[in-house]
Amino acid sequence: MAEQQVLHYVTHARSTLEITRDIAAIVQKSELECGIVHIFVRHTSCGLALTENADPDVRHDLDTLLQRWAPDGDPAYRHRQEGDDDMAAHARSLLTGVSLSLPFAHRHLLLGHWQGVFLFEHRNEGHRREVVVTLLG
Amino acid sequence: MAEQQVLHYVTHARSTLEITRDIAAIVQKSELECGIVHIFVRHTSCGLALTENADPDVRHDLDTLLQRWAPDGDPAYRHRQEGDDDMAAHARSLLTGVSLSLPFAHRHLLLGHWQGVFLFEHRNEGHRREVVVTLLG
Amino acid sequence: MAEQQVLHYVTHARSTLEITRDIAAIVQKSELECGIVHIFVRHTSCGLALTENADPDVRHDLDTLLQRWAPDGDPAYRHRQEGDDDMAAHARSLLTGVSLSLPFAHRHLLLGHWQGVFLFEHRNEGHRREVVVTLLG
Repeated sequence: MAEQQVLHYVTHARSTLEITRDIAAIVQKSELECGIVHIFVRHTSCGLALTENADPDVRHDLDTLLQRWAPDGDPAYRHRQEGDDDMAAHARSLLTGVSLSLPFAHRHLLLGHWQGVFLFEHRNEGHRREVVVTLLG
Repeated sequence: MAEQQVLHYVTHARSTLEITRDIAAIVQKSELECGIVHIFVRHTSCGLALTENADPDVRHDLDTLLQRWAPDGDPAYRHRQEGDDDMAAHARSLLTGVSLSLPFAHRHLLLGHWQGVFLFEHRNEGHRREVVVTLLG
Repeated sequence: MAEQQVLHYVTHARSTLEITRDIAAIVQKSELECGIVHIFVRHTSCGLALTENADPDVRHDLDTLLQRWAPDGDPAYRHRQEGDDDMAAHARSLLTGVSLSLPFAHRHLLLGHWQGVFLFEHRNEGHRREVVVTLLG
């Protein structure tokens, strides 16, 4: 049996937005006791990742590395219609991924103590982002 | 309830093959109305990723970056039995991943407007590739 | 229908531990004939990935690349409470991912011939690691 809903977010430039509580609330209200919650962004220039939720410097440092791995305005890029961050955002999206699957039981997410669910905005401007949440159990 | 089938592809060297339509067709014919479609390559030297489906330069630039991240014939590699692209292909596979999970509803994939499903051939030669598609709902 | 259990491992510093057999054994004993097995680590400094299971040099070379992508003690890092490998481990975790989903049929994993499931310890010391295994079918 599947349950599904869509969440909407407004992001800020090159930032991370913690959405753990929203996902936990959906799981809490589910008819399903145990299973998997699948989270998916319908975009190619943002991403989803689990990472440490205690020290914001972790996300700062991940951004530093993402900038190193996929530099803005790299002279090697051919795709540059929408500016210096356009291709970089697609590459960041490849590295972070655009979906997550998390286990739950007794209507609680089975996350580790330090794991948070983060929506990564990979563009240099904020955007409206759609997140599809599907529960299977 | 699960539905499963295997797709077969013949790839070309270091290229991407869009398989969105094949996946959409399977979802369209499913008994399941709503759920997740899981796509999996049974190989360690190719990959699956969602990315922009409009401008082929995006995949060209991703290849440029993959070559930078995991250079062919890097002197640091020990694993080089099958040539310069052997270890590079395994590393590319780690970065792209070998599976994708996509939500669907009313027998339609809930992809964003610009999201395409791509099979990435990470080797320097074409190969026969097996893709397992499993629907849960 | 979902089935779920937790596995416990003790890892060694910066090493990979193959857990394919443990996952295959769970699938073998399942009530479910066909579906997906989801594997998830409840941590932000280790990871899960499929890679070649024949030549251990592949994992050695992946570690070489991970060290290049996310250097220990990089001067750019702000997050350094737990030592030089702290932030590097979070970054490695982003790149490998912390979960895998694998298809199965007739109670057998549908892995390719050379695909092994590996728990990657990204820290410079061994740790106790919890892995949640959920089957859907």
